[in-house]
Amino acid sequence: MKVDILSLFPEMFSGVFQQSILKKASDKGLVDFEVTDFRKYTTNKHHKVDDYPYGGGAGMVLMPQPIFDAMDHITQDLTEKPRVILMTPQGKTFKQKHAEELAKEDHLIFICGHYEGYDERIREALVTDEFSIGDFVLTGGELASMVMIDSIVRLLPGVLGNDDSAVTDSFSTGLLEHPQYTRPSDFRGMKVPETLLSGNHALIDRWRRRESLYRTFHRRPDLLEGRTFTEEELAWLEKFRKEEEK
Amino acid sequence: MKVDILSLFPEMFSGVFQQSILKKASDKGLVDFEVTDFRKYTTNKHHKVDDYPYGGGAGMVLMPQPIFDAMDHITQDLTEKPRVILMTPQGKTFKQKHAEELAKEDHLIFICGHYEGYDERIREALVTDEFSIGDFVLTGGELASMVMIDSIVRLLPGVLGNDDSAVTDSFSTGLLEHPQYTRPSDFRGMKVPETLLSGNHALIDRWRRRESLYRTFHRRPDLLEGRTFTEEELAWLEKFRKEEEK
Repeated sequence: MKVDILSLFPEMFSGVFQQSILKKASDKGLVDFEVTDFRKYTTNKHHKVDDYPYGGGAGMVLMPQPIFDAMDHITQDLTEKPRVILMTPQGKTFKQKHAEELAKEDHLIFICGHYEGYDERIREALVTDEFSIGDFVLTGGELASMVMIDSIVRLLPGVLGNDDSAVTDSFSTGLLEHPQYTRPSDFRGMKVPETLLSGNHALIDRWRRRESLYRTFHRRPDLLEGRTFTEEELAWLEKFRKEEEK
Repeated sequence: MKVDILSLFPEMFSGVFQQSILKKASDKGLVDFEVTDFRKYTTNKHHKVDDYPYGGGAGMVLMPQPIFDAMDHITQDLTEKPRVILMTPQGKTFKQKHAEELAKEDHLIFICGHYEGYDERIREALVTDEFSIGDFVLTGGELASMVMIDSIVRLLPGVLGNDDSAVTDSFSTGLLEHPQYTRPSDFRGMKVPETLLSGNHALIDRWRRRESLYRTFHRRPDLLEGRTFTEEELAWLEKFRKEEEK
């Protein structure tokens, strides 16, 4: 997969792309990252990338020219139009299903603004997808794009080793993960639940399913909506509700 | 504000903390970042930080010892217990209101796992808050913590300049921002809407409010729930609905 990023702060990506899974994926040749500072494409004397908004108001707006020219350069030899993703608070909220869908693409281009808004013509003529990673304000799209890239790249075949990919991801079952414990069984007087040390796999499995449901019920009840439950799960849920009423 | 981060990948933070608003805030002495590699606190021979889960199953679990000892070191001279934030898919979803609340603290500690789960005793004995930034899977908590830190630090008094802080944030009005345009008024044949060039501020304001509502209606209808509308807005919404039915 080729991943292009347009950003005014290319150095922000260095630490992240030089570490961890993104570095591994790059070393294995599974992904090729390229960060383009679109300030280089400005045609005005002072290399200005933004200007005041038409109609007045506070804040600055990224001008179309530098981003259009940078995009022309990146896409000039391509036969297929790649997905072009704009990081913006106005985008749809990024979810795991979007990561799965985008992981099937050969080429992704991310456009990251910083403080400023985007001239609407960038959206209309260049962009295929607008994403936000959540309902909070960031100083720029850089961190948001890194988050998306990490969640997409880890899904590419060969990126995660067997050990890693076998991990039960929190969203794959649709419920939050149950509590986990490792050595020692007694740490500073805090003990691991006896069931987990029992060696009885049916009991352990039941304990985990119940804890998983319990945690989801209390922390993310929205994840339970529209879900079908076994009789055992329904009985557990009834019990959780009664406990709560006390 | 003091911000401590516990991570096995401290280098991931270098690019981000050396750029942009976080660097500025640090240079002005408004925030002090410290990243601690908790692998340094391991007491076992091979500096192992994780182990297999009790009760079986795939994946590894971060052991309590290195994280407890790193926390002991960080908090040894403190008179008040700081907020300790665990980055985890099982946490509550981070929102702007949490950024605002956390920006009032003097000291935040972030614990970032990577691939692995956390031993439950870390949660129970050390952690005050568990956060997730969204419903997607990341390879580690590092990027998620950077996102939270960026959104919190930009709210500290003095961090954003007047120009930046005057920007209409997308979540401050509760609606998505209206389209923005800047120079030139004609770019490659794409023109700025005439209203914005009219100089009529009442018309411009009305255009913007309508576009803001339009965009929210189509992209994030969830933001409209429970909101009260003016008569003008109700008429617009009625029109948007009729357009959609066509």
